[in-house]
This record gives sequence, structure tokens and C-alpha cells, in this order.
Amino acid sequence: MSRSGARPTLAVVGATGAVGAVMLRILSHRADVWGEIRLVASPRSAGRKLAVRGEEVEVVALSEEAFDGVDVAMFDVPDDIAERWAPIAAAKGVVVIDNSGAFRLDPEVPLVVPEVNAHAVRQRPRGIIASPHCTTLSMIVALGALHAEYGLRELVVSTYQAVSGAGRAGVDTLRRQLSLVAGTELGTNPGDVRRAVGEGTGPFPEPVALNVVPWAGSVRADGWSSDEMQLRDETRKILGLAKLPVAVTCVRVPVVTAHALTVHARFQGEVTVAGAREIIATAPGVVLFDNPEAGEFPTPVDVVGTDPTWVGRVRRSLDDPTALELFVCGDNLRKGAALNTAQIAELVAAERA
Amino acid sequence: MSRSGARPTLAVVGATGAVGAVMLRILSHRADVWGEIRLVASPRSAGRKLAVRGEEVEVVALSEEAFDGVDVAMFDVPDDIAERWAPIAAAKGVVVIDNSGAFRLDPEVPLVVPEVNAHAVRQRPRGIIASPHCTTLSMIVALGALHAEYGLRELVVSTYQAVSGAGRAGVDTLRRQLSLVAGTELGTNPGDVRRAVGEGTGPFPEPVALNVVPWAGSVRADGWSSDEMQLRDETRKILGLAKLPVAVTCVRVPVVTAHALTVHARFQGEVTVAGAREIIATAPGVVLFDNPEAGEFPTPVDVVGTDPTWVGRVRRSLDDPTALELFVCGDNLRKGAALNTAQIAELVAAERA
Repeated sequence: MSRSGARPTLAVVGATGAVGAVMLRILSHRADVWGEIRLVASPRSAGRKLAVRGEEVEVVALSEEAFDGVDVAMFDVPDDIAERWAPIAAAKGVVVIDNSGAFRLDPEVPLVVPEVNAHAVRQRPRGIIASPHCTTLSMIVALGALHAEYGLRELVVSTYQAVSGAGRAGVDTLRRQLSLVAGTELGTNPGDVRRAVGEGTGPFPEPVALNVVPWAGSVRADGWSSDEMQLRDETRKILGLAKLPVAVTCVRVPVVTAHALTVHARFQGEVTVAGAREIIATAPGVVLFDNPEAGEFPTPVDVVGTDPTWVGRVRRSLDDPTALELFVCGDNLRKGAALNTAQIAELVAAERA
Repeated sequence: MSRSGARPTLAVVGATGAVGAVMLRILSHRADVWGEIRLVASPRSAGRKLAVRGEEVEVVALSEEAFDGVDVAMFDVPDDIAERWAPIAAAKGVVVIDNSGAFRLDPEVPLVVPEVNAHAVRQRPRGIIASPHCTTLSMIVALGALHAEYGLRELVVSTYQAVSGAGRAGVDTLRRQLSLVAGTELGTNPGDVRRAVGEGTGPFPEPVALNVVPWAGSVRADGWSSDEMQLRDETRKILGLAKLPVAVTCVRVPVVTAHALTVHARFQGEVTVAGAREIIATAPGVVLFDNPEAGEFPTPVDVVGTDPTWVGRVRRSLDDPTALELFVCGDNLRKGAALNTAQIAELVAAERA
């Protein structure tokens, strides 16, 4: 932050995307720390007007000049665009907060979740700070609080990932497929859903309506998906546990927005349900919602549009007094993307105060 | 089996239910070992005619006389009906194969999966043999094969359970909810799906369309659900591993039929992916379908209506050379219920040969 005095100027790069739209709503509702908010997108979106903080703002094309006078830039763009443009902005003195996968595992780029490792934001030799993948973010605030108290030793995670994690094309694909299968008897005979939805599986390798698809991301070595590797590697980096064993299987489900995860977490010593519940209930950014007898546990349709990480089904493993079972749910577009980026940007803005 | 010579008489008790309907289709297509097939149901269904083996058969009311001359009876009825009527049939010399939860953990009742523990069928002091819960059955054939080779030490399981596991009411509820939300923009704002489906959550505690619900079954001690406890206890009994650590979270998903599960399985020594794949590929009743680069992994819409347990996403855990990650999928009404019961009945019939 080279400039001081006036409120900092913020650039939102990728303002017209799915996460960008959520970002503009978040910026309109949070305590306002920004001077100018500049909206940046691809040249074909330049000239569009979008509402933020109750004002119409014209979108400017991504270029070196777009960063003139900018203090902080939030990037919500594909990996290759971030990889090219974040260093250009950083070279102009802009602090870049990047929500792509381009820099998350770069040892010179901190990977920040404000509730867990806010301190890491100040070590940024490249001028770039990364925000984690939505799947990691949907569980890490709750896990970070439990780790701080109990000391994490091992994780086994399964995901129930919403289609909006694959962007607008993911949402459009589910909606189109649902309109083809709703009101039918489909789903009880082999292949009938596949025939109904035809070739239109969009960003998914299989039909996602009336189905679950055990794949998210691209192919990595030894049969792993990129979402699985990211969840393991990012969790290790954020918690500072370089050798934490993490086993994970990522599965896409026909939910529009809000990721859910089952978590089997083993700690250094014995845990109690009462202790775990108190940690979860008092951790910032986390809500305990756990009373099965009253039908209370978090589900995506109730969590969508909210900021916290919701935790339910808190149990101590029946056969291991050092392990907990949890069901965790969070909005993948808010805390899973835009909100965490905005929180990091606010930490940077606060450095000036 | 007191009678010999003629082909045995089979009674299907609960012939008019969701599993009963699948049972009649299965009996019509498998190698036919039965003499008479008698269809039994509640008095209000008596007189209905149902097709089996290409013939119309009149349903008779459940009564002591309904078991006259019967050698083997398959029960697909609620727990309380099974608890009352299975001993009555057994007292008349009928071998009862029960698909309810009433007898599964009774030490004097074997819990049988023919591919895994066919031998157990002969120890039946009460004349009753139990078939496992659909969730257990959706994974146990694959796990049994891996256990026979590697020796299982620990399981962590998460489920993706189809609505037909809650019977016809479950399927009707999903279909009704889908018709209310399909073609809308619902799913991106808090509570909009809940408002659209109203109070009609059927057998589920929350809306199941566009949602996942971390609950299946009834409330047990310490926050566990009955489906979770059953999966643990039945797996231990079938595999003969009384102290196997099993951690499980059961989740309902908006799929009509075919349960899926993620499995983290730890064994006595090091495992290899090549070895695991060969075991899975050659095990009876199991299909290996595992080539992510070609988009090949099992999903419910492809597995529904088929007999085997499908296994994909076979990986060795990155941080534990003794553990495997799997994604397993099976038709909860076929192998998960009717087919396993029919297979056990055929084992009993073969005792006469």
C-alpha cells in the first residue's frame, strides 16, 4: 500500500462472471472501506454497466492502464488470465488477491482464510495473495477452529459439490436437464436419464440431474482429480501442516449452490462432543446447527446466500475417541469465493489505517 | 427343508411393495428353481393379481394358512410385521429370508450375502436368515473381496443414498418436488426451494430436490442415525470382524434409484492399485468401471436396473500405502434388497438338490 490518506481504490477483475456478480452484491452490503471501485472485465464486456454500492459503474477492459491508481485488485478470472495479469498489476504496486488456482501453491504467495491465518497476509513477496478453492473454503474455517484446540492428525473427506462450482454453465446444464426429466417416471431404468438429457452434459462428464458424479476438475496422476488434490494441498498449506494425511473423494451433486462435505477428522488426543460443539459454536464465521431429534442439520437449500460455514451431525467416532464426524455446508460462491476474497482485501485495506 | 423331490414352494410376503415389485421381475428372469410361487400381502391387497414368470397370480392375505405347504418365504415388509410373522412361518417349518431390520443383528440369525458368506446360511437355529440393509449391500460385495485378500482394518464411509431407499413415498416426494422447482431459477437464494416445496417433505426431514440431506433412518444415541449404525454393525457381522472400526455419515441425495458410497478402506499391509483393480475385476458380482481419462466411473443413472456392485475411482491413499479410496455404486432395490434375498432363497433351495 504505497498511497495513504484517502480511501484505497479497489479493482474487481472479472466483474461480469458468476463470482463477480456475487462480489458486487457483497461489496454493496459490507462495511464500506473503499474509495473508487473499478470494474474490470474482458474487452467484450467493456462498456456494460453494473450496479455496486447503489451506483451504476461502467466496466472497463482488462489492460495495464486499468490498474492505474489502483491499490487492491481482486481477480475472479480463469487460471491463465490470472497467471498473465496478476504479475502485471503487482508490478504496478497493486496488491492482488487472486481467486484462481494459478498461485495457491506458490511458496511465495500466501494462501489466506482470514478466520484461520490472517497473519499470513503480510508475507507476500510477489505482491499476490491467493484465496483457496471453493471446496477447501467450505470446510476450512470450522476445521481450523478445531485444529487450533485439538491438533489435527488426519482427514478423510467426501464432497457433495454444487453445480455452480462449475460456473454459470454448470447451473444452466442442471436446469436444462431438470426441465427434461421433471414430471417423468425417469430414473428407474438403466440409461433412461442419459437418453433424456442427450449429449448435453455441459461441463460435467455425466448427466448431473437425478445423479451424482464422482468427478470434479481435471485429471491428475494416479486417477486423482484436480479438486481432490487441491483440497489436500491447500488444507495443508493453510493449516501449516505440511504432512497432514488427507484422503478425499470429490463428487458433484444436483444442487445449484452451496457445497457440503462429510469430514472424518482425527486429532492428537481424545476429543469430546461437548468440547467440539463449544469450539464450533464460538468460532468466528462458523454456525453450529446440530439437533437431529428436531430435524436440525445444515442443508444446501438453507445455507445458500449466507456467509458462515454451517456445521451439523457432530459425533465422536464410535470406534476412535480421537476422531470426530462432521457434516459441513457453505455457500461456494460467497465464503467459497467472493466473500473470502473481499475479507482478504479488507485486511489489506486495514494495513493503511 | 422338510419336503423333498418336487420343486420347493416359495412365498413372497410383501409382494405389492416397491421391493416386492422388483422381486417379481427378478423371479421372472432368473433360472427358475421354484415350484409354486405364492404372493402374500396385507389383507387390503388380497385378490389383486400380479405377474410373475409370465403368469397372473392372485395375492393372498397374510395369515398362518398362507404358509401351508410353503418351503421358503421371502419377507419384504416393515420391521414390526416381520417380527410378528417370521417366527410364525418358521414354526411351520418354512425357511424365512427376511429383508427387514428385525433380525439382522440377532446372534441366532445369520446375515447373509451369498458372494461373501454363503456358508453362514446353514446355521439358522431360528429358521430365519436375514438380508442386510440396502446401504450395506451396496458396498459389501466389493469390500468382502478386498477383505479376503488384504484383511480389512478400518473403514470410513460416506453415502449418497437414493430416495427409493425410503420406499415409494420417497420417490413420489422427489418427483413432486422436482416438478415444483424445475424450470425455475430456484436454488440461489436462501429458503426459496423450501418455500416452493412447502411442507411436503414426505419421508425426509428436509426438501430433497436441489438438496442433499445428511440424515437417513431414525434417531439413535449420541446423534447417530439408524442407517449409520446399521452399516457399521452389519458390516462387522457379515465380515466376521466384531471390532472393525467403521466411521460413517449417511446422506440422502436427489437420485431415484441406486445408492453410491465413497469408501476409505485401510488394510493390514500395503496395497497396490493394480492388485486392488484385479481383485475387483475378478470378484463375482462386482464390475470394475474405472477410467477417469475416458470419463468412466459408475454413476446411479447408469447402474440402476443392473445386478452387480460397480466400483470406480480406485486409488491408493496418497498419504497411507495401506489404504484405498473407492467410489461404489449399486441398485438399492436389486442387489440392495430383492436380488440378495432371491440369491439367499436359491442357496436354501439348493440344499435339497
